[in-house]
Order: sequence, then C-alpha cells, then structure tokens
Amino acid sequence: MSQAASEYIRANSGRFLEELKDFLRIPSISTDPERAGDVMRAAQWVADKLRAAGLENIEIIPTSRHPLVYADWLHAPGKPTVLCYGHYDVQPPDPLEEWISPPFEPSIRDGNLYARGSADDKGQMYMHVKAIETLFAVHGGLPVNVKFLIEGEEEVGGANVAKYVAENPEKLKADAALVSDTALYAEDMPTLCTGLRGLVYMEVEARGPARDLHSGLYGGAAPNAVYGLIELLAKAKDAEGRVVIPGFYDDVAEPAPAEIESWKSLPFSEKEFLEKEVGSSCLVGEPDRMVLERVWSRPTLEVHGIGGGFTGAGAKTVIPAAAVAKASMRMVPNQDPEKMFRLFADWAAAHAPKGVRISVRKLSASPAVVVNPDHPAIHTAAEAFQEILGKPTVFIRSGGSVPIVGDFARHLGIPTVMMGFGLPDDGLHSPNEKFRLENFYQGTMTVAAFFERYGA
Amino acid sequence: MSQAASEYIRANSGRFLEELKDFLRIPSISTDPERAGDVMRAAQWVADKLRAAGLENIEIIPTSRHPLVYADWLHAPGKPTVLCYGHYDVQPPDPLEEWISPPFEPSIRDGNLYARGSADDKGQMYMHVKAIETLFAVHGGLPVNVKFLIEGEEEVGGANVAKYVAENPEKLKADAALVSDTALYAEDMPTLCTGLRGLVYMEVEARGPARDLHSGLYGGAAPNAVYGLIELLAKAKDAEGRVVIPGFYDDVAEPAPAEIESWKSLPFSEKEFLEKEVGSSCLVGEPDRMVLERVWSRPTLEVHGIGGGFTGAGAKTVIPAAAVAKASMRMVPNQDPEKMFRLFADWAAAHAPKGVRISVRKLSASPAVVVNPDHPAIHTAAEAFQEILGKPTVFIRSGGSVPIVGDFARHLGIPTVMMGFGLPDDGLHSPNEKFRLENFYQGTMTVAAFFERYGA
Repeated sequence: MSQAASEYIRANSGRFLEELKDFLRIPSISTDPERAGDVMRAAQWVADKLRAAGLENIEIIPTSRHPLVYADWLHAPGKPTVLCYGHYDVQPPDPLEEWISPPFEPSIRDGNLYARGSADDKGQMYMHVKAIETLFAVHGGLPVNVKFLIEGEEEVGGANVAKYVAENPEKLKADAALVSDTALYAEDMPTLCTGLRGLVYMEVEARGPARDLHSGLYGGAAPNAVYGLIELLAKAKDAEGRVVIPGFYDDVAEPAPAEIESWKSLPFSEKEFLEKEVGSSCLVGEPDRMVLERVWSRPTLEVHGIGGGFTGAGAKTVIPAAAVAKASMRMVPNQDPEKMFRLFADWAAAHAPKGVRISVRKLSASPAVVVNPDHPAIHTAAEAFQEILGKPTVFIRSGGSVPIVGDFARHLGIPTVMMGFGLPDDGLHSPNEKFRLENFYQGTMTVAAFFERYGA
Repeated sequence: MSQAASEYIRANSGRFLEELKDFLRIPSISTDPERAGDVMRAAQWVADKLRAAGLENIEIIPTSRHPLVYADWLHAPGKPTVLCYGHYDVQPPDPLEEWISPPFEPSIRDGNLYARGSADDKGQMYMHVKAIETLFAVHGGLPVNVKFLIEGEEEVGGANVAKYVAENPEKLKADAALVSDTALYAEDMPTLCTGLRGLVYMEVEARGPARDLHSGLYGGAAPNAVYGLIELLAKAKDAEGRVVIPGFYDDVAEPAPAEIESWKSLPFSEKEFLEKEVGSSCLVGEPDRMVLERVWSRPTLEVHGIGGGFTGAGAKTVIPAAAVAKASMRMVPNQDPEKMFRLFADWAAAHAPKGVRISVRKLSASPAVVVNPDHPAIHTAAEAFQEILGKPTVFIRSGGSVPIVGDFARHLGIPTVMMGFGLPDDGLHSPNEKFRLENFYQGTMTVAAFFERYGA
C-alpha cells in the first residue's frame, strides 16, 4: 500500500480508537425491543461517520424494524465497484454478571478492546470507514468505486437487508462485496474465508397439562411439558453427538479433497482449542470427522436455551404446563433451509412424547455459501493481506453464518471477500467480547491496501 | 356435634371469612427471601388469632429462617391431647399472568374463595382456630387438651419444624395430631387420608464450556450444557414413563390388597381426571398401574423446571455454558430418602453426557408415611366427618407430602388425623388456587365435632 496511507492510519490511530469507543457505547441490541432507540442512534452515528469520511448520497433507510444505512462514491470510471457491508447491531450482553468490565463501557486491557460489538461487528465495520477516510485524505479520492450498506438486524436474522438487496439489485450493483465479520485463523495469519454455514433458527414449544399441576397430587399420571421437551430433544442425537433425524445429512456437499488437505496443514491444536477456547473436559461431535470439519463443513443441531416451570430460588413442586427451547440447525452447502426446517418440524411432530403437544416456529433461515478463491477480488484481497501482515494468506471456512453473503450471491451475482480481522478467542456472543487493537489498525491498512490494489 | 356450636359457626361465618381474607392478603411466600418480612407478619397474625380464640402460652419461636407459632390449652384433665398443625407460608404465585384475580387479593367467584394459600394451607389451618373459638364461645372451655404448632416453612422443606419436633418431644406430647392439608376425595364425601408420599427435592446442574460460546464457531465440537442436561434427564425414564434408574422401585412396599380393592370402589373417572383436572391429550405413567396407584402408591421422578442459555425474545446463537433443573422424587413406604437421593446422584454422575459435568444438590428430603385407620383418634374423626356430611367416611391416600406427619410419628410416636377439606381441583401450587367456601364452614364444624367426640 502507499506509504502515505500507512502513515495516515498510524498517525490517526488514537482518534480512530476514541471514535470506535463512542460507537461501542451505544447499546444497539437488535433483539431487544426496548433498545430500538439505541439501535436508531447507532444508525445515525454510522451515517454521520460515512459522511465525515467523504462518502456521498447518505441515506438512512427505514424498514419494518431497524434502519439500513447507505452511502456511495462512484467517481472512479472504469474501476471496479466494491459493495462494503457491515452491521451496527450487537448481541444481547447477558449473562451480565460474567463481564469483567461493563459491556457498553469499552475498556482496554492487554492490547485488547473489551466491549459488546468490539469484534462483531462494530470494530470490523468501522475499519472500512476509516480506510475510506484515509484514502480520501492521502489521495483526494478513491481508487475504486464504493457502495456501503450497513444493517441493524444481523443479530436478529437480517430479514430487511435481505429484502432490500433482493429489491434493489441495480442500485447495489458491484463487482464484489467486502465483509469483515470473520476472524483470522490465528494471530497475524492473513486469512480469507471462502465458506460459511447457513442457519435455521427455531423455537420449540411443548405443552402438557392445561395448567401447572401439584406434583404430589398428579405426579405419576400427568404429562410434564418440561420433561416432554427434554425427551423430544434428547432423541435428536446419539451419544456421540450425531444427529439421528432421518435425512439430516442427506444433501451435504463434502468439501473438495484438496480443501480438506489444506485444512489439515493449518496449525490447529485440538488441545489448545479445547483448553483455551472451549474450556470443557473434552470435545464432542461426530467422532469420524476432524474438528475443523465438524465446525466448518458439517451440519449441526444445537439448543441455545431452554426455559419452563419453576426456576426461582428454593423449591416448587409443579408439573409444568409449558416449556420452550431455542434451537438451530447450522447448514452446509447443498442443504436447503426450508427443507431442513420441514425435516425438523415434521420429525418433532412425529416424535412428540405421549401427552405433550409440540410446536416448532422458524425465526430465520439462510443457506450456506461458498466462494471461489480464484475470483480477482478475492485474489487481490489475498495479496493485500500478505503485504500488510507479511505472510501468505490462508483460505479457510467459518462455521458461523453471514446470511448477507448468500443474498449478494443470489441477487447481485457477486462474490464476497470475507476478510475478517477478529481472532478465534474474541468471545463473539459471549461475555467479555474483545477486539485486538493491533488487528483494528492492521485491518484498516489491509482494507485500504485492498482498495488501492483492486483499483490499480 | 352440639347444636350451639353449629349455630355459632353459621352465625359467625361472614366474620370468619373476612378474617381469612385478611390472612390471605399477606404474601407469605417462604421460598422468596424478599418476602421474609411478609412471612414474619403472617406468623404474628396467626399468634394474634390463636390468642383471640382463647388459647394460652402463645409463643413466636424464632428459627434460622421463618418462625414457628405455638399455643396451647391444657385444662381438660383426663381427656386426650390433640396437637394441631398447619402452615402459614404459601407457594410462589408464578406464573402471575395466568391468575384471573391477583393471588394476594382474595376474590369470591361461584362459591369459591380464590387466592394463593386459600386451600394450601391458610384456609384449612384457620378452620382449627375457628373451631377452638367456637368451642370456647359455646362451652366456656374445650372438651380436649390442645396444642397448636404452626410453621412458616412447609413449602421450603420444613427443616426447622422438624428440628423443633425432634428436640421438644415432651412439650409437644399428645395422643394424636390433627392436620388439615389434604382434600376430600370428592365434593361432600367425608375423607380421611391414611398415607402420604415422601419427597426428595433436588437441583441438577450441568456445566459444559467455560463460557457461552458462539454456536457458529464451535457448534459441532463443543459440549452444550443445556443439551447435556436434557440428555441426562431424558435417560431417566422409558417412553411409557417408567423410571429406569436401577434400583428405583426396589424398596417399594405395595399397598395391602384390601386397600387396592377399596380404591377400585372409589368413584374415580379417568376421563374426568384427564379432562377436568389435567387437561392434556392423555395421561402418562406406568401402564400396568391404575391411575390412583400411580399418584398414591408409586414413586415418581419429576422435573419441576429447567433453565439455561438464552431464553429472551428473538434469537441468540450461543452454546450455553451452564444449565440447571429442579427435580424431585416422590417416595412411597419403605423407600429411604437418603438412599434414594444417593441412587439418583450416583446414577446422574455415572451417566453425565460427554464433556458435561453434572452435580446434584439435595434441597429437602422426607419419607412417606402411613397411619392405621383403627386408631381411636382416626376412628373418631371418621365419625365426626360422617355426622357433618351425612355420608360414610372413605379412606384414601395422597400423593403429596406432609413431612410433619412423619416427624410426629418418628419423634412423638403419635398418629396424625389427616382430615383435609380441599377439593381435587383446588389448584394447589398453581394459578387460581381456590377453596370452596362451604368446605371452609363444614370443615370448621367437623373439626369442632371431632374435638367434642374425642373428649366425650
């Protein structure tokens, strides 16, 4: 990259960080209806910063829930157009008591910035904004055309951005998209992500007796909604963790043998993964698959939470009338979300325990996606990455879901450069989420270098 | 019973009811530490009413948690002594949104008094107090000696009353105990209860990863505490509802064949039990046992509540680090609570799913109890019952637990007259708990008649 850009980023890094901390102080929790005002405030904040960076045609686009923010700069004729995507909403911070510093009061410890959204995705999205500011500052213009589309519903399924992309293909037309919402494979290792798992998120509800019953008077004869839900969900997997719902693995497209081989060459330590990241007594899951396959290219069924009956202090002897679980399926290429949802819902209905009614609701659905590493944008991104970090770029997948990447492929026909600067232990969706400060600065440089190279 | 007593009760029924409503307005929820002041207020209220009824030696006895209330009147030499027991604490009222009228604002509808504690046990305990007041009013004294011991921890395991009974056998010496904390078998059917199930109440906790993890990044390889708890608990029963923990049924003493025969002659309708009381699509449990056996003389394992992971509005894709369930075993004669707890805890430890640590804590334990229907007190109670309701008294069991009955047998060597005036659909421990007003008045008469006959 140009030395001027590099120097500008280093010289302004303190200000960039203070701005990001302001952003992180806004509790833009999209799941929480009571935070709608904060979510709106975050959208306004993003719009202001896009304008300040030098972009034009700023729009805050209302939706049925949280607004989109759009901006562009299209004065580089003959040069490619990059569609930059990010999200300004964050996950809920609970369990609050496990945070060392409060989730919405950014705190720096050991070179890391701790706050909800620091890595997912406010910090990463803001690198794009600061790269744009840098290029305007040092070149007086941009080497490529850019469009920004920032949403506020990524953590609640992203229905409105998906609709917007589907309905505005001309406006959003571009050669490639750029998304920074993934992680480096390891510290200082340039990493591009070429595949994401899909997600179907569901609520599973069980109903037993008409009301909570006294377990002394009815225990032994009345169905129990909590136990019914437990029984049902336990039937979904075998003792090894394989999902036993018929057809669950039928449509799975296996990764190419070369891809599997390259994964085997990554510096993955099962011991470190277990001890430093997971922190349990052992790992679980399909025993005939290596861990990276289990988390990158194998579908899963997970229960995210369960509640029902009495859970307060002390004892209450009820047979609960109702219980509900949050569950999801992660999907891999060739699995159709609608088909997988029907598979689960039909299986659940067919396996409802005696005396218990089961209902399954779909909250969101998005398919898996893979991109071709030989596309010019991805190739160029790999070079920019190598330039800044000084090492060859590795191609990995992520087990997470970035539904927008599928929408860009489907509606705009473009690949997405998934150039993320998080680290595996950032604690996304967990207490004490953090973003390494050096990654924030190097990420900003890499994005700037990518724009420079892609426009050269 | 004496006509004077009967007339006094009818003449004062309006006042008795208003007093009971005052009592029910005190939210004496013993499980809830924040309600400790209300629990204390209820104890004081009871002490005041015992004094007003004519009893002596009133004491509010402090304990490590909620106080006991004691009173006596011992001026009937040569007559038997009855130890009257009740409890002034109540279950938590949640789920609050299902109450038609608020749980602590007593409301009368269709001849029923709706409030938390109306039947369990404030309304029933208060019948004893009003019977005493009646006998003093019409006879100037009592036909028997009486001692009252009223506790405030029945809904949290009753540890302190058990300790008090064990440590004060001389003070509490009596010929029989009287407890009104059970139900008539059916409306207007005189019923004495001769057996109760025991109870071991437990918390089962599961721990998986060290913190909540992102299900995209770790799903497929990291253990899930909620799923681990689900898997464990589901293994405890077969599809029919039989508990499959080895040894669970080993020590069960079957009821005598004559007792089973008498249960078969009760007007039990499985259809009505299912439709009017349980309200589910079908009943469950051991298929080779009739329903009354399942709820009266068979042990059970029940889950009262479960919580873990994300259960708020919307979606959060975590792999939960921890989950906890409230569970209990109802026990029948010959099953030892300590042995049964060890049986469960050892089984749970041995069956912990891969990667998940399980711990089991015991919150309370009390054994089952049976009494002999030929004892003079029980025989006399049956006659008093028949006198007031005009029908022969039936002998049943209850699947619930009244731990004090076991304590009285063990430490005082006396049987307990379990003369309850609730109805099967009173909704104990559920929203919209109620007590039929006519049962409150007839119950007061029956208790007075029992005292008159037992002292005759």
